[in-house]
Amino acid sequence: MKKQIAILGSTGSIGTQALEVIEEHSDLYEVYCLTANNRVKELAMQARKFRPAAVVIANESHYEELKDMLDDMPDVKVYAGMRAIDEIVEAEPIDMVLTAMVGFAGLSPTIHAIKAHKKICLANKETLVVAGELICRLAAEYRSPIIPVDSEHSAIFQSIAGEGDNAIEKILLTASGGPFRNFTKDRLATVTQADALQHPTWDMGTKITIDSATMMNKGFEVIEAKWLFGVEPDKIQVLVHPQSIIHSAVQFCDGAVKAQLGVPDMRLPIQYAFSYPDRIHLRGDRLDLFKHPLEFFEPDMDKFRCLALAFEAIRKGGNMPCIVNAANEIVNKGFLDGRCGFLQMSDIIEATMQHVTFDSKPDYDTYVATDSEARRVAAELMG
Amino acid sequence: MKKQIAILGSTGSIGTQALEVIEEHSDLYEVYCLTANNRVKELAMQARKFRPAAVVIANESHYEELKDMLDDMPDVKVYAGMRAIDEIVEAEPIDMVLTAMVGFAGLSPTIHAIKAHKKICLANKETLVVAGELICRLAAEYRSPIIPVDSEHSAIFQSIAGEGDNAIEKILLTASGGPFRNFTKDRLATVTQADALQHPTWDMGTKITIDSATMMNKGFEVIEAKWLFGVEPDKIQVLVHPQSIIHSAVQFCDGAVKAQLGVPDMRLPIQYAFSYPDRIHLRGDRLDLFKHPLEFFEPDMDKFRCLALAFEAIRKGGNMPCIVNAANEIVNKGFLDGRCGFLQMSDIIEATMQHVTFDSKPDYDTYVATDSEARRVAAELMG
Repeated sequence: MKKQIAILGSTGSIGTQALEVIEEHSDLYEVYCLTANNRVKELAMQARKFRPAAVVIANESHYEELKDMLDDMPDVKVYAGMRAIDEIVEAEPIDMVLTAMVGFAGLSPTIHAIKAHKKICLANKETLVVAGELICRLAAEYRSPIIPVDSEHSAIFQSIAGEGDNAIEKILLTASGGPFRNFTKDRLATVTQADALQHPTWDMGTKITIDSATMMNKGFEVIEAKWLFGVEPDKIQVLVHPQSIIHSAVQFCDGAVKAQLGVPDMRLPIQYAFSYPDRIHLRGDRLDLFKHPLEFFEPDMDKFRCLALAFEAIRKGGNMPCIVNAANEIVNKGFLDGRCGFLQMSDIIEATMQHVTFDSKPDYDTYVATDSEARRVAAELMG
Repeated sequence: MKKQIAILGSTGSIGTQALEVIEEHSDLYEVYCLTANNRVKELAMQARKFRPAAVVIANESHYEELKDMLDDMPDVKVYAGMRAIDEIVEAEPIDMVLTAMVGFAGLSPTIHAIKAHKKICLANKETLVVAGELICRLAAEYRSPIIPVDSEHSAIFQSIAGEGDNAIEKILLTASGGPFRNFTKDRLATVTQADALQHPTWDMGTKITIDSATMMNKGFEVIEAKWLFGVEPDKIQVLVHPQSIIHSAVQFCDGAVKAQLGVPDMRLPIQYAFSYPDRIHLRGDRLDLFKHPLEFFEPDMDKFRCLALAFEAIRKGGNMPCIVNAANEIVNKGFLDGRCGFLQMSDIIEATMQHVTFDSKPDYDTYVATDSEARRVAAELMG
């Protein structure tokens, strides 16, 4: 039986690469459902090619357009709206849900999928950043496995495969360091969105590319790692590794470090999330360790304040990471739109952290309220 | 119940480090038996400290001396001779046998231990070099697990833990490159035993240190890897990695490479062989990736002919690796004694490979006969 997959955010970078994997292994996998936010044309083209049982466009204003485009394909049901995504992930035939949408929007459908006992292939890291405690509790309660798709967390997940209860001493989370790794703080003050969109090693969506430039992405990954692997932030070490060859590593109680290495290719962690615990052939370049030496540097948290703020947020706990995430979504967009400077981003996030109501024991409704409040505060601060 | 361990070759580098591990974890492990070749004083001291049920001195001429030294310890039975080692490993209470003796001598007691259903912690790589096919067949037949202790093979073994039947595409076997890595061939012709005994990263016995300098040690590890992991030599890539941080790695069919890293410390693979699949705490330095970049180079098989000869031997199969091993034991000793130059070693091994009777389907007696013949031929060639 082919595994039925729902791809949430199918027109993004992860979504399209997931479809490449499914196409390559059409004997194993089948698309049950595709969703997108606004890119209605791309979604319709994907639907024509993969013939899913359903497609959902989150932005309801595109519903008629999508419906018309798929008029001649009566087998593909067309829906619109966020609520429709929450409902479709519960569909009985679905085996796995790949959560590849961007931002806070991933939270609700992920919860629905967990409650419907689906295997979660988690690419939307904001879900764990915002509500890691809730998500992990639900995943345990409903016995829905969460397999990480982020290359770093996939590397950690691969490194602990077969290790049972062996104690983790430290997680070594690698970071490319982004395009501004060697910039001075003065120079950082003047970088533009165009500069930031040049990521040295990974080809990704715009939001995550900006987050990589500020290293907030790495901060979120620290939070994600805490929840996925039950490791306290003080045992998570960030290493700047410009070659992006060691995707991350785990140090065990005997001092042994296990790592996963490879060329930067997101299809690998996507496919591994689908095939785990098995591995299947993946066409593509193989690692060549002769090319260049592998270097590692300590991150500069003074220059990259966002990373320090993320550590601060997860140490504080409660809804603080949710506040950071919401503020970050606002300043990230602000920077992309030219309404906010590079260094201002961390200033605004830090101020938002001080102004939004703190709650040490948030539930789902708290997260929703915190998210709204933090967005409002951050937007005001940005002016 | 504490695990009862027999250490064959307890006065060598691996043996003494194994005793450190056992001392540190005396709640888990107990020494059942210690054996040595000639170092009777060290053996007696170890026996006083660890109070094993038995000690064996392989060289029978030391029997009376050892007996006298342990005269006041009636609980420690004293034996002598190779036959006694073969018998003692079969003793009922023994759970694991650490084969840490040097050279061809490891073969017979390893076979006896396998047939007695003991878990083998294999540090004597010559056993697999000489008779890998036989040993693996017996291990499968008697269901006696073989856990590698060589740091490279332990790294590979750790990297495939939990991978089930996932296909291996390639083994990446790392090598420090030895002290002569950057020497020209002319300079190699004049190096002395004293130069060769300076290993850059690992502190080991003399035989293996010379084998590291010639890279025959790496060649033997290729053969060992073939037998332990069922991977053909053409899928085993040797990488010179002077920092000795990545202890080796495995590339799977999806291109993912898994590696084990750490500071060079043989206690880790020894302890892991004992504790597998669990890990227990190991005191000592931890990996610091910030220290220096990790570099990788292709080995120069023209300069280090021994590595090429080992590949040739395992491709040829049969008793050819046994021939290479025997010739190598002779020239290694010859070089240590100043009777043979550095480059002559590979010349003599190559000539021995051409002169000794080839057998494509050897059994145990063939190996014994081949070993004798090859030693004689190599000794004659050395003059």
